[in-house]
Amino acid sequence: MLLLRNCRYVITPTEDGGVKVMENASVLINNGVIEGVGDVKASGVDVIECEGVAIPGLFNAHTHLAMTMFRGLVDGLELQDWLKVIWGMERRLTEEAVLMGFELGLIESLMSGVTGVLDMYFNPNVINLVEKYGVRVFEGPTFIDEFENPRLTENRLRNLIAESQGHSLIKPVLNLHSVYANSEDTLTRVSELKEELGLRLHTHVSETRWEVYRIRDRYGAYPVEVLDKFKLLDSKSILVHLGWVTNWEIELILRSQATAVHCPSSNMKLATAGFFPIRELMKGSNVTLGTDGPGTGDSLDLFKEMRLAVLLQRNNYWDASALTAEDALIMATRNGYRAVGLKGGLIEPGYLADIVILNHEDPKVNPLNKHNIIKNIVYSYTGSMVKMSIINGKPVYGPHNRIKLIKRTKELSQKLSNYIEKLLNNH
Amino acid sequence: MLLLRNCRYVITPTEDGGVKVMENASVLINNGVIEGVGDVKASGVDVIECEGVAIPGLFNAHTHLAMTMFRGLVDGLELQDWLKVIWGMERRLTEEAVLMGFELGLIESLMSGVTGVLDMYFNPNVINLVEKYGVRVFEGPTFIDEFENPRLTENRLRNLIAESQGHSLIKPVLNLHSVYANSEDTLTRVSELKEELGLRLHTHVSETRWEVYRIRDRYGAYPVEVLDKFKLLDSKSILVHLGWVTNWEIELILRSQATAVHCPSSNMKLATAGFFPIRELMKGSNVTLGTDGPGTGDSLDLFKEMRLAVLLQRNNYWDASALTAEDALIMATRNGYRAVGLKGGLIEPGYLADIVILNHEDPKVNPLNKHNIIKNIVYSYTGSMVKMSIINGKPVYGPHNRIKLIKRTKELSQKLSNYIEKLLNNH
Repeated sequence: MLLLRNCRYVITPTEDGGVKVMENASVLINNGVIEGVGDVKASGVDVIECEGVAIPGLFNAHTHLAMTMFRGLVDGLELQDWLKVIWGMERRLTEEAVLMGFELGLIESLMSGVTGVLDMYFNPNVINLVEKYGVRVFEGPTFIDEFENPRLTENRLRNLIAESQGHSLIKPVLNLHSVYANSEDTLTRVSELKEELGLRLHTHVSETRWEVYRIRDRYGAYPVEVLDKFKLLDSKSILVHLGWVTNWEIELILRSQATAVHCPSSNMKLATAGFFPIRELMKGSNVTLGTDGPGTGDSLDLFKEMRLAVLLQRNNYWDASALTAEDALIMATRNGYRAVGLKGGLIEPGYLADIVILNHEDPKVNPLNKHNIIKNIVYSYTGSMVKMSIINGKPVYGPHNRIKLIKRTKELSQKLSNYIEKLLNNH
Repeated sequence: MLLLRNCRYVITPTEDGGVKVMENASVLINNGVIEGVGDVKASGVDVIECEGVAIPGLFNAHTHLAMTMFRGLVDGLELQDWLKVIWGMERRLTEEAVLMGFELGLIESLMSGVTGVLDMYFNPNVINLVEKYGVRVFEGPTFIDEFENPRLTENRLRNLIAESQGHSLIKPVLNLHSVYANSEDTLTRVSELKEELGLRLHTHVSETRWEVYRIRDRYGAYPVEVLDKFKLLDSKSILVHLGWVTNWEIELILRSQATAVHCPSSNMKLATAGFFPIRELMKGSNVTLGTDGPGTGDSLDLFKEMRLAVLLQRNNYWDASALTAEDALIMATRNGYRAVGLKGGLIEPGYLADIVILNHEDPKVNPLNKHNIIKNIVYSYTGSMVKMSIINGKPVYGPHNRIKLIKRTKELSQKLSNYIEKLLNNH
């Protein structure tokens, strides 16, 4: 039993779709699950003095964690040109480098208040790292014909399923890079696997105009239609980007109740243009947020994405009510957990005890009061103002391990910089 | 004499328009001015172990500092509707509240690496606060007919000019709210004052479609044309927003060599739409960045604006080369100092010793190396990663006063929250 005692504010999405603010509230946690919230007291339990602002842990619904190694490295290119450079380097990545990049990504995530991650990369066995840091990770090998025979990918997926049994934090997903980077045979096989294994499907779709043209040329249909045709579109599908979807594709997504993931930083940086139709998708699909990989988004900080999602929609619709701070907070918490089928993202009894405590003393977020607290979380906080991250009721980041994490960051950074230097010099 | 010894990197815009990276470099400061950079050594001087990354201090070329008190308070409205609510409260502001909001804004600025500010508000006498915190502030009473008789504003400006004599950090400017919120008589008078006093002019212009329609109805001309007609457009003019300017207005601005200030967060949040024409303006005008007031931009953090300026231009132009990280860094440093006529914004001998030292150990900016350092400054750093701010060669923020500043923040926040509560309850 753990009591987070006397938070100045506890902020949570509610089951009926709003956001609730509780003042001077405590949270009681039992066996990884929230047992009580509000004026709760308990004796004979572990106590953490909360002081700051408690919010549900943030769920990063699309990233490539190991790409911390490419942070800030290739800039000024649009997606397909960017991919040419990055794929050139990725073909020569060592397993050790991927593991180091992934580890740095886990550290950055938990220090930024991210408690769950949906990851797409060719990760070797990361189970030990996930257990070590305690962040929830949904991942799996990625089907991408240009890189690997799908038979091998399938074998690696089956191994992951076997090896991750009994681990509560790591869960396999079916990572399909995209329709455009896979053959029809692979799409068919992934569809069969989805049926057989009952896993969630996670895929890039309709990110660029180029992609839409290419798919229409090849299939005489649009990308979301192709997913549907291959039985890859249902409530367990997680579709990332969707910048260039037609009205009738939006209809298909709504009907399927799939999850739609918006990654505004990455889309803007790569100038994919397009227009993620949040308001339309919110009418039935589960809309959530991702940082994309740090190779394009430069960050694993979901506070930045919440803010930018609101700013970009308002800019694009010429409408200051296009998206609210409350919408963004719900997207980054409740809807992220929904995307992967976990009962989390709310600070309510019965929900997973994934909670983040924010500093409330920083001038960047003050004055702080009941009138502006939700807005300030979305517009003024960043991951740097996270004091503690709690996952499954266990503090995985806080004053107790901050120095250790920074020390490990230094070691990883040095090694990754040396590695990148070699990669750049030997191409 | 002060030596910043052994910075891991020193990053600076150069006189010929680039950005230079120096590794393991030191900076020698004498009497508020930079004397040497690179492999400099000196004995018998004060020494600060730099360790991190040194960049020139950031210049916030447009804000309303005291509006920290309105942070996160009014959201979801477009500019004119937003102004109605805010002006309703501003008409009842006490002098004490404005001073507290201003003080909190100064603390936030220096803790975020902002070493100079161009401020527009009805500030009472802030000279003591500016001296206390040591941030460079360019300000002055604001000509806005809806609030104050321009005679009174002029008197207050003349008082400020007299009182600020002999103070090196505070400098008067001619703040004209806008063409739309002032009469022709006031524009004429401000023009005469500009001529007489030789001050810089700082004004909002072409922020919204509504404004452009209104001005064209009234004057049969566009806003920048009106400024030109009233002799308010020259190299000492600082024009903020410019989201809705015509080609021929851009030509006028280029010919005048005025400064153009972009505030992307605020523009996007208020859904002003429009399109700040950075690439066109960069052909001759001095283009720089501002946060706008925390009532709309929610922040005084110029790192956020550098990143967003790049993202927004790329999104708007559908072109990933539309603006580079280097452009954004130059805008936020060198060009800000240029806007107000100070020799600062470079870490080169002869320039003002306004320098910011950034933490280099945070996982959010690692790995960090010579290949990504400039990009990471623009895309991955935030004001929270500032370790020390130095203005005029004097550390005004750092480990030595951090706790004191946080303590003062708590006091100000409590008082401002109480004040806002009263303001909301008595309208």
